Amino acid sequence: MSRDVITAGPAPGTVWLVGAGPGDPGLLTLRAAEALRSADVVLHDALVGPGILGLIPAGATRVNVGKRKGHHPWPQAAINARLVAEAQAGRRVVRLKGGDPFVFGRGGEEALALQAADIPFLVVPGITAGTAAPAVAGIPVTHRGLSAAVTFLTGHAGEGVADTIDWDALARAGGTVVGFMALTSLDAVALRLLSAGRPDTTPVAVIARATLPGQRVLRTTLGACTLAVRRARLPMPALVVIGAVAALDLLSDQLTDISVASGFAHPAS
Amino acid sequence: MSRDVITAGPAPGTVWLVGAGPGDPGLLTLRAAEALRSADVVLHDALVGPGILGLIPAGATRVNVGKRKGHHPWPQAAINARLVAEAQAGRRVVRLKGGDPFVFGRGGEEALALQAADIPFLVVPGITAGTAAPAVAGIPVTHRGLSAAVTFLTGHAGEGVADTIDWDALARAGGTVVGFMALTSLDAVALRLLSAGRPDTTPVAVIARATLPGQRVLRTTLGACTLAVRRARLPMPALVVIGAVAALDLLSDQLTDISVASGFAHPAS
Repeated sequence: MSRDVITAGPAPGTVWLVGAGPGDPGLLTLRAAEALRSADVVLHDALVGPGILGLIPAGATRVNVGKRKGHHPWPQAAINARLVAEAQAGRRVVRLKGGDPFVFGRGGEEALALQAADIPFLVVPGITAGTAAPAVAGIPVTHRGLSAAVTFLTGHAGEGVADTIDWDALARAGGTVVGFMALTSLDAVALRLLSAGRPDTTPVAVIARATLPGQRVLRTTLGACTLAVRRARLPMPALVVIGAVAALDLLSDQLTDISVASGFAHPAS
Repeated sequence: MSRDVITAGPAPGTVWLVGAGPGDPGLLTLRAAEALRSADVVLHDALVGPGILGLIPAGATRVNVGKRKGHHPWPQAAINARLVAEAQAGRRVVRLKGGDPFVFGRGGEEALALQAADIPFLVVPGITAGTAAPAVAGIPVTHRGLSAAVTFLTGHAGEGVADTIDWDALARAGGTVVGFMALTSLDAVALRLLSAGRPDTTPVAVIARATLPGQRVLRTTLGACTLAVRRARLPMPALVVIGAVAALDLLSDQLTDISVASGFAHPAS
């Protein structure tokens, strides 16, 4: 690797808020990889996989602040407090977040907490699942003639979807809708878009565990998606793409010898 | 670097459509870097900078298919034909695109051309400027209490913005609007959003040359943005963020010794 793309990791007493991307270690950025290699302590989400966590030095402290079976996730305030405390203790701190820190990642809240405590910090963008998950399913979120806009929204509880989004307006605005959501929220989202006039034949794709082992892609329609998702028993996390582009499959679902971890390859026929 | 994150580049006779990210070499993915190092030929956009192109081996062929001063960009059909021809000649081909191949990148069109010619190909997602440019300006595109959705759209001619987007609906839908646009298109976009009811006090941030040397951030409002942008003589390319989050500045605009190339750091006061 040439020297000019190597960057130092966090200095002692500082925090880097780092996007881990969708999960595939190959989709980590060079800067994120360097941050992990030089960290004293890494606070990471539950969804960041072993391929990425393997970059953390053996002597560094790893803290899983995400949800695990039978365990509750850390409250945001506890994560913020731990970040501040670790930096104040002079450690090189990485907060490793799935996807991008500033796309439904609450990175803004962590940044505000660090600002308030006068802790120097840096944000390292990552690839959001909002673009990567459709891509590995062969779906361009924008495509000439089909979609000139894409809207990311969340269906997770507590993010205030119903309160702040005008669903009638969104349904009419056109373009692709990408939902970062618990699949249990899909019923409510589909109902709102149907009620607002999107046809029940609108293509829908659900991508589960994008770029990770066990990745699955379900193709359905807005009218049928809620039952189709239940029948398919898709693993978490999942991302939902709604709109004309969701019918595209620019890649094959068959792996070939040129495919890599996430298998987003098109084989010659 | 541990072995498990190393992936092979394109095999002979295959094409990788690779996202280069916003420009900072540190925001290239591990897989993209590996693809460049093993390529025989790289067709790249004009906006991909020297820091990234420096990863290409000296013996490989570099083709700039983007626009240059006094030169026209290659027509899309010519790019497609060259990709097919290089693969058919048995070369390891990388098509290196700014940002993400499937976000206003015409990657879908290139994928269709490769499919039609039975050329095996792979898509390597990259960080879109739609998330990275706001991030380096200290703007989270979503933030609890301010924005639960973000819409990416384009204002470039020929992408059919006016035809396919219902601007009245978009203005009412709420959430952040991120425009990938020629600044000459900003007048029309601002006028449509104002006419549709977005207040003229709506915060606007314009980020020029995000993550690249010469990066500049302009803060203005929807009502004042068009003249403010002209007065500031911002360099290209630029990205426009419209909505409440555009008023946030979670980072400082001052560089410190923990900042790296793109300087998106918050210094302790």
